[in-house]
Amino acid sequence: MMLQSFKGHDDAAMGALAAQVFDGIRALSPDSAGVSRPAFSDIETRTLDWLADFARTEGLHVEEDAGRNLLFCLPKDAQAESWVLIGSHVDSVPMGGNYDGLAGVVAGLIVLIRAARSGRSFRRPVKCLAMRGEESAWFGACYLGSKMLTGQLPDAELAAAHKGDGRSLRDHLDGLGIDTAPLAARTPICDLSKIEGYLELHIEQGPLLVERGLPAAVVSGIRGNFRHRLVRCIGEAGHSGAVPRAYRHDPVLAFAELMHRLDDTWDHLLRTGRDLVLTSGIVGTDPASHAISRIPDELGFSLDIRSQDAAILDQMRAYLREQMDDIGRSRGVRFDTGAEVAVAPALMDPTVIAGLETAMARVTDEPFTMPSGGGHDAAIFAQAGIPAGMVFVRNRNGSHNPDEAMEIGDFLVGTAILSAYLEAEE
Amino acid sequence: MMLQSFKGHDDAAMGALAAQVFDGIRALSPDSAGVSRPAFSDIETRTLDWLADFARTEGLHVEEDAGRNLLFCLPKDAQAESWVLIGSHVDSVPMGGNYDGLAGVVAGLIVLIRAARSGRSFRRPVKCLAMRGEESAWFGACYLGSKMLTGQLPDAELAAAHKGDGRSLRDHLDGLGIDTAPLAARTPICDLSKIEGYLELHIEQGPLLVERGLPAAVVSGIRGNFRHRLVRCIGEAGHSGAVPRAYRHDPVLAFAELMHRLDDTWDHLLRTGRDLVLTSGIVGTDPASHAISRIPDELGFSLDIRSQDAAILDQMRAYLREQMDDIGRSRGVRFDTGAEVAVAPALMDPTVIAGLETAMARVTDEPFTMPSGGGHDAAIFAQAGIPAGMVFVRNRNGSHNPDEAMEIGDFLVGTAILSAYLEAEE
Repeated sequence: MMLQSFKGHDDAAMGALAAQVFDGIRALSPDSAGVSRPAFSDIETRTLDWLADFARTEGLHVEEDAGRNLLFCLPKDAQAESWVLIGSHVDSVPMGGNYDGLAGVVAGLIVLIRAARSGRSFRRPVKCLAMRGEESAWFGACYLGSKMLTGQLPDAELAAAHKGDGRSLRDHLDGLGIDTAPLAARTPICDLSKIEGYLELHIEQGPLLVERGLPAAVVSGIRGNFRHRLVRCIGEAGHSGAVPRAYRHDPVLAFAELMHRLDDTWDHLLRTGRDLVLTSGIVGTDPASHAISRIPDELGFSLDIRSQDAAILDQMRAYLREQMDDIGRSRGVRFDTGAEVAVAPALMDPTVIAGLETAMARVTDEPFTMPSGGGHDAAIFAQAGIPAGMVFVRNRNGSHNPDEAMEIGDFLVGTAILSAYLEAEE
Repeated sequence: MMLQSFKGHDDAAMGALAAQVFDGIRALSPDSAGVSRPAFSDIETRTLDWLADFARTEGLHVEEDAGRNLLFCLPKDAQAESWVLIGSHVDSVPMGGNYDGLAGVVAGLIVLIRAARSGRSFRRPVKCLAMRGEESAWFGACYLGSKMLTGQLPDAELAAAHKGDGRSLRDHLDGLGIDTAPLAARTPICDLSKIEGYLELHIEQGPLLVERGLPAAVVSGIRGNFRHRLVRCIGEAGHSGAVPRAYRHDPVLAFAELMHRLDDTWDHLLRTGRDLVLTSGIVGTDPASHAISRIPDELGFSLDIRSQDAAILDQMRAYLREQMDDIGRSRGVRFDTGAEVAVAPALMDPTVIAGLETAMARVTDEPFTMPSGGGHDAAIFAQAGIPAGMVFVRNRNGSHNPDEAMEIGDFLVGTAILSAYLEAEE
């Protein structure tokens, strides 16, 4: 798959280095299954310390920023006026996998080390950014590290309680010696004007690259979404044998009809070339009144609807409302959607996408571009006005679980795309 | 609504008597909400004692049978060679209503007292049977009292543990002084050859009579059913944003499609005049792995499919299997239905139905016949070869809950149908 047009990667050496980092940090952060690197924790700090030691050993310059994140670069770029970032996060979910986040940081280090060893130069100075606190598992909100850097952290998130110890994020940041005053003022704690672009390599969290037999992909954008944590479909309880169909107010059959219609519409939108995924991940009748012979009075369910296209999200929002009204009328039930939480799609920068596609064409014989279903720090940098781009690496079994299975060979393809994009052509 | 063709009921007096019994027994069996008369309990015994005192005061003959149920009759019928039974049960579910079961016993008493006071005679001797132990809430199995009488109690049910104290049904029966040897031998503990017929009045457990504006109905039969307590739809977990539709194995959408197809078929069968009800009363994804952004790996649900027509049940069983296979193939999921529990439909005796319909035509201006969705002791007597018939009385809010709402006026219409059927025409 690797073409001859982008030579000199020394894959064996780079692969061994990457494995050394993954293994070293895995050993720092074991959980009962998989790994656990809590956001803004001592384990996270030890992880950054390990990376700093590793980077210094490899001859890289290391510095800490105001968010106690680490920046790595070639010594000659330490005093650069501006740079391109390759960033990602080092924290993980509990009982998570070793690659979600960490792979993007290691990718940045490999790109730097590869350039140093090969003697090739970057078109622009490059820094690798190892961030803290991306996963929502710890404080209920995600992208905390990149929101802090870019001045986008809401007050509510600064006050959010840690799910384990109940202490606020502000307390945890104080404990790390991070000045929270600029955060509360929504002031970026780094100089955004110096960041010419933001690149992030991440494992794919879905099966598309596995199914398509591709090692990596350029990411076109991060899907936005609108979500309802709990939609209540409220009907009327009754005896399963004794209530004729015409007199039922059955929330289960109403839910089934709604999901069936949404699924049909999803199929139709895909056939017309639109981007959409939709999921009801949580479904349930009330266990307190469970009986096989009882028509339940209520069913609760979650909805998560995502698209790269804000217009499609708006269209689906209106369609959902119409269908709930229609089914509510015909079946004598009522849908109470509760609060909607929405995130706008974050498109990657077209110039960066084009550059990464060109790089991928040099590295592999099958360039491929796809949307990202999950959110990433890249969206936060894009929202801060920094041209952003992402590379996905093939990964089995999804993310946020101990079974994440990225292969080092695929990872090297991903890093080679970044190198080919960043290095000056010879 | 009451026609002049069946006179002399003395509705005011009979209504007052019925209310006296309902109120007296309600006071014996209060729960935190509604009433609670556990099967084979002291409360059940005190209920029967109360009824015996009441019946003796009204001049009726009272006797106890080998199951410690009570039989009431006119003194002149105490030595009859054979008789028609009007029966039902006195136990209730926990936090139940006062009428499910008890109304049928009170109906039998009213029919006897009405005949005694009016001086009218029955065509055949009549006995009222107040049974113990019909509700499955206590030992997990239903119709225990009538199964004991007719020699149909399975060994497993004799060994079944009480849901409160964990002691077996056999222990509870021993404690009441009931000889369990014939039960284990499946020997009827009453002389079935003496029972010429079995009649039962019961509150309707659905809304049909309320919706149709009718006080009562003749029951054509008791729907049979087949049920699955837990069908597992097994798919594959994934990230809600990252797994494209084509690569999903989504058990929630598979369930929605299955229920939608079953519902369509239900609608079609009703339009062609068939009898069917179907319910999925318990539905749920696993709370241990709940996440709004996770395609769940599995959804569990119950199925309860009922019809008066055994052929329709067979047809639905085959249809269900076909649809599960088809959806399993198209969506890459697997349905594991677990054990099926089936009960055959129990048709009421055609001659008894016709007789009750004629009686109803004498009592009201709008005779009406409907199926019973719930099971009743009448099914057990029918299975023992005894011609059985039932009368439903209008009731709001279903049964098995404190909100059961039968009106005494409707109850009197139901008892008048029984009287008109049993009494000799003048």
